[in-house]
Parts: sequence; structure tokens; C-alpha cells
Amino acid sequence: MADVVLWRRLLAELLGSAFLAAVAIGSGIAAQRLSSGQTGLELLGNAAATAAGLYAIILMFGPVSGGHFNPVVSLADAVFGGLSWRDAAAYLPVQVAGCTCGAIAANLMFALAPVSISARHRASPAHFLSEIIATFGLALVIFALARSGRARIAPAAVGAYIGAAYFFTSSTSFANPAITIGRMFSDTFAGIAPPSAPAFIGAQILGCVLAIAAVKVLYPGLTPAAASQVTVPRDHADLHGGQPAPPEPERERTPHG
Amino acid sequence: MADVVLWRRLLAELLGSAFLAAVAIGSGIAAQRLSSGQTGLELLGNAAATAAGLYAIILMFGPVSGGHFNPVVSLADAVFGGLSWRDAAAYLPVQVAGCTCGAIAANLMFALAPVSISARHRASPAHFLSEIIATFGLALVIFALARSGRARIAPAAVGAYIGAAYFFTSSTSFANPAITIGRMFSDTFAGIAPPSAPAFIGAQILGCVLAIAAVKVLYPGLTPAAASQVTVPRDHADLHGGQPAPPEPERERTPHG
Amino acid sequence: MADVVLWRRLLAELLGSAFLAAVAIGSGIAAQRLSSGQTGLELLGNAAATAAGLYAIILMFGPVSGGHFNPVVSLADAVFGGLSWRDAAAYLPVQVAGCTCGAIAANLMFALAPVSISARHRASPAHFLSEIIATFGLALVIFALARSGRARIAPAAVGAYIGAAYFFTSSTSFANPAITIGRMFSDTFAGIAPPSAPAFIGAQILGCVLAIAAVKVLYPGLTPAAASQVTVPRDHADLHGGQPAPPEPERERTPHG
Amino acid sequence: MADVVLWRRLLAELLGSAFLAAVAIGSGIAAQRLSSGQTGLELLGNAAATAAGLYAIILMFGPVSGGHFNPVVSLADAVFGGLSWRDAAAYLPVQVAGCTCGAIAANLMFALAPVSISARHRASPAHFLSEIIATFGLALVIFALARSGRARIAPAAVGAYIGAAYFFTSSTSFANPAITIGRMFSDTFAGIAPPSAPAFIGAQILGCVLAIAAVKVLYPGLTPAAASQVTVPRDHADLHGGQPAPPEPERERTPHG
Repeated sequence: MADVVLWRRLLAELLGSAFLAAVAIGSGIAAQRLSSGQTGLELLGNAAATAAGLYAIILMFGPVSGGHFNPVVSLADAVFGGLSWRDAAAYLPVQVAGCTCGAIAANLMFALAPVSISARHRASPAHFLSEIIATFGLALVIFALARSGRARIAPAAVGAYIGAAYFFTSSTSFANPAITIGRMFSDTFAGIAPPSAPAFIGAQILGCVLAIAAVKVLYPGLTPAAASQVTVPRDHADLHGGQPAPPEPERERTPHG
Repeated sequence: MADVVLWRRLLAELLGSAFLAAVAIGSGIAAQRLSSGQTGLELLGNAAATAAGLYAIILMFGPVSGGHFNPVVSLADAVFGGLSWRDAAAYLPVQVAGCTCGAIAANLMFALAPVSISARHRASPAHFLSEIIATFGLALVIFALARSGRARIAPAAVGAYIGAAYFFTSSTSFANPAITIGRMFSDTFAGIAPPSAPAFIGAQILGCVLAIAAVKVLYPGLTPAAASQVTVPRDHADLHGGQPAPPEPERERTPHG
Repeated sequence: MADVVLWRRLLAELLGSAFLAAVAIGSGIAAQRLSSGQTGLELLGNAAATAAGLYAIILMFGPVSGGHFNPVVSLADAVFGGLSWRDAAAYLPVQVAGCTCGAIAANLMFALAPVSISARHRASPAHFLSEIIATFGLALVIFALARSGRARIAPAAVGAYIGAAYFFTSSTSFANPAITIGRMFSDTFAGIAPPSAPAFIGAQILGCVLAIAAVKVLYPGLTPAAASQVTVPRDHADLHGGQPAPPEPERERTPHG
Repeated sequence: MADVVLWRRLLAELLGSAFLAAVAIGSGIAAQRLSSGQTGLELLGNAAATAAGLYAIILMFGPVSGGHFNPVVSLADAVFGGLSWRDAAAYLPVQVAGCTCGAIAANLMFALAPVSISARHRASPAHFLSEIIATFGLALVIFALARSGRARIAPAAVGAYIGAAYFFTSSTSFANPAITIGRMFSDTFAGIAPPSAPAFIGAQILGCVLAIAAVKVLYPGLTPAAASQVTVPRDHADLHGGQPAPPEPERERTPHG
């Protein structure tokens, strides 16, 4: 990704984060509206739609920005050396803005007020543990694949993992600080009350730190080059369609340039 | 695809569009008949069947015609230079005819009258926005994959995306003018009343135009050769099974010939 | 497959057909028992389990026998020259026997009598049309993939297609004469009363003949070598693990030998 | 896998087994809590989450340890020569410990007591037969893929197979002695009463032995090298990211070293 100019990568993170939030929140609204009172059925529709949508969204934007849409993934990528710390710092606010835009889009697609603050309180020790485990697994699957030359299947693996984690955790696996913030702005099935957000975000950071340690232990030879191939192997994400790349004079000079 | 004679490509688009409409409408009828009143469960069956079916249908016909079954995909392909404008103009009426035949087939498979005009009014600002977003994402995933040498996974990506979009939009993501017309002819779960169709089609064209702009910005080096590989990479869709191609004297001379 | 001795291929067809029937019928029994009266939910569980199971079963036995488990697939393979007529004739009774054994296994796994004759009458013009269309699509997806060098994804494509076809047809897509016979022996959700079976089988043969014609028109260059790669490309299904093949003196001399 | 030092492989088996149990039991608790009384819907959520989660978990740990998480898979691998008997003996207690930890984690994620002994009695002839068939199929799909150079798709195949087997057996396909023990420690949807466990484990061993015989008959040329590639082909699971491997002085000398 590092050979793509930064503003293009930020645009991809913005659009992708917006799509991710629109899918997670929008499918939650649809499920709740259509299956009112049958919470298991609501969660099944919400989880299946998020899993399938996430797969497609990572495919859409992965070759441009890496398809993170998630500050803890960018953080881990920076720790492993695949993304510069400066770029990671630029990704973060864009991911939060994208998820917020996506929440608004979801509300509007279902004829709701553009913004409503969620009243769904979720903070509890069980939810805290759930978010640690959910984020640990998410970061582990991403960087285990990057580490072992299998980044090509990361879009499917991440989609499947998140779909499962909606069910096997009590928190329905937010596993992403940006979407945790975005979900505050929709008082619907997938929302979270602002007072519960800090605990979720803390658990997500903790889970990510544990995953970084586990990857370092299990896959000791992880190189920055491999870490940078978070969702699309470089040889596969050839951005020039087999043709020689045209000169791109506006390309920024980043540490990866 | 351009090296396949035009009538074969049109036959593939006709059959594929018919299958697509039969799957989307037929599974809607089944879901409605079997889960009457449980709209969330109806939509889950409808979405899962359409996603899985669309994957298989694109695989069936992709190497012949590109597996568009959708005028806005053909339009975008023409804009990027992967399909001639003359061929795109020939695809369009065939896609509409195919989706109409598929609607009739679905009605007949469930022992209904061959044609019934839907009374399901769907036009609203929220549905309009939903169709813009749904079509934007559909065109983006298709051409992002074509642009980055990953067309091989387009059948799975398109199926997954549409399955998710059934849930995360309030319009259940038609995202296709041809099937919007076909769905007018079935007064069942997946139908649409004719007065709602023009707004849907307008939103779909708008979403597609936005996606073309996004692809041009995010993937600036898109070549016509890459754009033409909408669902099957050329090297993969070798139509001659590893044998030298037999001479095909009736082959049309298109600009791609 | 032709380089695998015939008795091994017949054993694979026997086990695979038994697994297929056990999955289709067993999941139907489970769904019916657990969701009594909610037919849409029953069909959803039955379809999802059959789709996922079929994918795994074709992977289990595909490199040995081609993973047909279906007389009309063997018939089409013989028409295209991928299987000798003599071998196709040997496959057929084994497929029927396997599906019957699978029905008995399903009954026993759910503590039912080993055999009960289904009383589920299904013959109607709408079901007849459904089976023609379902089988047409099944044979088309298999041979379109074989024809275009994409047989490697046939297990996933066939699973997804059948899962979708359970929903978009009124007959729940048997699309297979052997399993039509096997399903007569279980008076449960997935069963079929014997008087309805001949019409189903006739429709399946008709759908298969139409698919053969469509493949010949759409993919005119289909060679016997490509046709024989029904579910696993020959180079992929290397049965000797990269080692030189040991001499296999008991190998039969078939026309493919 | 044999070129990874043993303690790393045991850590991977521990974490992977814990994740597997957390997913299977956690999603069962969620499904039961959210869809109380609708057993079919509970099983659907439980099966879908386990299938998708298992796919991701095998991807996480496969290149390190083979991603067994199951004593009968390790047993079969040892029989085929892919794993030394000494290593298989080391895997077993770790797998049991991991599944037990996972059960505790699942209980805690849903704010239950860390340990509760299941009162769900499951021993019956029908369940016994179900476990034989379920384990037979699981071992067959794993080693058929390893045998025919297709280990790369084992994670997806195993996930899909187990998802289907939850539905087509009456026992909901434990197919794994370690998770059978782990499930004793959660008195919830996916639990099993200790008195029922020995019959389940006996059936699983029997199913595995039958599968080993079937693989030997159907795929006679299985080499230890191929057998060792249970979930990740060696060339694919390059643990050094394309770089020359750093010397690893603590590497154990196993028979595979």
C-alpha cells in the first residue's frame, strides 16, 4: 500500500469505514425492524450481513489502503513496521470520521433522524472480556495470514471471523474503536451508549496488544514487508494491471516511498 | 469476452439475467409462502439464496459474456473501455428481456399466473438513497477487482455484497435496472409497483456514475484491458481448454477483435 | 479420474452418494424436529446444511471418481466424452444404492425406523418445471466450469447453487435421480412419495439434456479432456503427492486408460 | 509443521483449542439466550458461528501446529506418518486443556460461573452412530485434501463440514474428544453431561479408525510428507516470508527435523 499516495489511501479508509458502519448499523436496523422481539433472528441477520459485507468492502479498498477501517489494526501494522507511525496517525481520525458518516447514512437509509444518541448501555465485566477476546482474535487472524504469505484470503477470513464473533461473545464483537464511536450515533440495534464506549475501546486496545505479543511469539520471523501485506499481497494487488506503471508525479514521499 | 461472437454473449446475458430474476423472485416467493408474517426470516432466506445463486450464475456465464446481467455494469464497462458502446447497447434490451422471462419462470415454478403486476410501492427518499449507495458499492467492488487483477474472485464478491446489501439498505438493494423492470411482473415478496420503478432506476444510474468517479480516483491506472475482465480474468477464462482455438469464421469484428 | 481403477471410483461414488443423502435427509429431519411448524426456518437449515455438506463431500471424493453422486451428471459427462459409457453405466446403480444407504443412515441417526416410505406427494406441473430448471442450472454450472478451466471451484459452486435452488424452486431442487430414489425411503421433511418420483426423474433428464445443448452452444470448444475434469482439474488432483506414481498392476484398461 | 519448534506448536494448539471451544460453547449460549425455545434457530446460529469461526481459527494457527485442535486428527496424522507419535502424545493433553480453558472463557464472556457441570445427557445408540459418521467424514475430508495436494482449502472445507454436521447428525457432531471434555464444563446449550462423554469419545475413535482405512483404500499413495500438510501446504506456509530462514538454534530434533 505504501506506494499509493497518502490522500488516496485516506479516501479509501474514509469510504471503507463508512461502508463498514453502514453495513453493521443498517443491517441491525433492518433486522430489528423486521424481526422485532426475536433477538436471535435479529443477530443472525445482522451477523451474516456484516460478515458478507465486510468481505466485499475489504476487497473494494484493500489494494489502496490495506483495508484497515480499524485503528487497532493500523496500530498493530505500525508496530510490525508495515505502516509508518505518521501514516497510522493520519488513518485514525479518518477511520472515526468514516464510521460516523456511515452511521448517519444507515440512519438516513431507514428514514430515521440523521443522528440519534444510543441509549444501549453495554459496559460490564463480561462485555469487557468479550471485547478483549474478540479483538485478540481479529488481530491474530490478520497478522497470522500476513506473516505466512496468505494475505490473499484475509478478506474472507476477517469477514468469517467477525460473523462468528458476533455470536460467540456477549458484546457482539465491536473489536474496533472507530466503529465503537460511530455506533454511538444510532439509537438502534447495533448502537452503544456513549458512557459504555471508553471501556469497549480500552478492551480493544488491550486485546490488540495481546495479539501483537502472540504473533511475535508464534510467527517470530515477521518482516515489515510481510506485515504491510495486511489484506492483499503486493504481487497480487498490482495497481497497474500488468502494464508498466505510468509515472505518478504527485506521489508523496513517505518513508515507504 | 470480446473474442466471443456477439450472439453467444447475448444468449449468455439472456439466460443469466433470467436465472438471476428467477432466483431473486423465486426465493422471495418461497420465503414468503413458508414464513408468512416473519419478514426478517423471509428476507434472510431471500438474501442467502440470492447471494449463493448469483455466485453460481456469474460462474456459469462469466467467461462468455462477462456475466453482467445488469445495464449499469455494462454502462460502466463501456465507460472504462472494456465493452464497446455498440455492444453495451445490444446487452441492455437482452438483460431486460431476460429478467422479465425470469420473473415469469419464477411465477410458474410456484404455480402462480405467469404475469401479475406488483402492487408493492417502494418509492421514498430513504429507498432512493438506499439504491444510490447499493449500486455505488456494487459497481465499486466489480471494477476495483477488475482494476487490481483480482477478477477471479468477483463472482464470490458480488454474491456476498448483494446478500449483505439486501439487509443493510431499506430498499433490499435492487441495484440493477433490468431486474427492477423484471420485478414489476411478479406481485410477490420481491416485486415492485411500476410507479416506483423510475425512481429506483434513476438512483441506480446515479450510484453507478458516482462509482465510476470513485474508481477513476482510487484506481487511476485502470486500462480497458483490465476493465474488460469484469468477472473472469482473460487468462483464466481460456475458452479452448488449453488446446489451440479452432478457427471461428463467424466471429464478428468488434473494436476488441 | 479415468486413471483411477474402476472399483475405487465406484467405492467413492457409493460413499459420496450415501453422505449426500445422509446430509440432505438428516438435516431435514433435524430441521423439522427442532422448528416444527416453521417451514421457512426448516428449509433454511436444510438448505444451508446441504450446501455446506455438498461442498465438503465433493472435496472428499472428487479426485477419485469425479464426485458425481448423480446419474444425470455422469450421463452428461459421458455425452461430452469425459467418462466412458460403460463406466457411466457402472456409476448409476452405485449412486442409487449409495443414496438409499444414506437415507437409512439418516433415519438411524435420528432413532427412526431404518426405512419408511415417504407419503409426501410432490408431483405437479410447477414441481415438474422446477426440476427442469434446477437440473438445467446444475449441469450448466458444472460443465461451464469444466469447459473454462475453472473446475477447481466446482465444489463451492455446486454447493452454493444447490443451496440457492432449494429456495428458488417449489420442488426444493432434487436435481438428481439417485437422491430422488433415496428420498423415497424416509417419511420425513425431505422425503418424496414413490408415485411422484417418475415425474421428478423425467424432469431431471429433460433439464440435463437442455443443459448439454446449452453448453455445446455457449462453450463450443469443449474437449473430452476438459469434460472429464468435472470437479477437480487433473493437474490439481495429482494422486501421487508429487512422487512418481507407483505401478498399479490391477489397473483396468478403460478407453481412457 | 515439523520444522516449527515443539513448544510453539503446543502453544498454537492450546490457543486454537481454547478459541474453538469458546466459539462452539459461546455461540451456543448466545443462541440459547436470544432464541429461547426455538431450538432450530438456536442450532442455526450455533452451527453458522462455529463453521465460520473454525475456518478463521485454523487459518490463525494452521501454519504453526497444523491446526488440529482434535486428538483424533493428531492420531490419524501420526498413523499416516505426518506427525511423530511423541509429538501426537504431547498434543493431546494440550488440546484437552485448551478446550477446557475455552469453555471457561465462554462461561465468563456471558457472565456465568466459570465452571458448571453440564446436565445434558446425550448417550443413545442414535447419538453413538451420529458421532461415528461425523468423525468419519471429518477425518476423511482432512486427509483426502492432504492426500491430493489441496490442503490449502482445508480450513474452509473443515468449517463447512462441521457446520453441516451440526445439522445432519442427532448429536450435533462433536467429532472431537478434546471438545467433548471441554463441553462438560458448561451447563448450557452445547454442553454434555460427563456420563455421556465416554460413549461419544469411543464413537469418535471408531469413526477415525474407519476413516483411516477409507483413506488408505481410496488414496493408496498417501505419503508422510503429504499427510503432514494437514491444513497448510508446506510451500504455502512459508514461515519466513520469502526471506532465508534465520537459524533457530533451539529447534528440536524430531524424526521430521
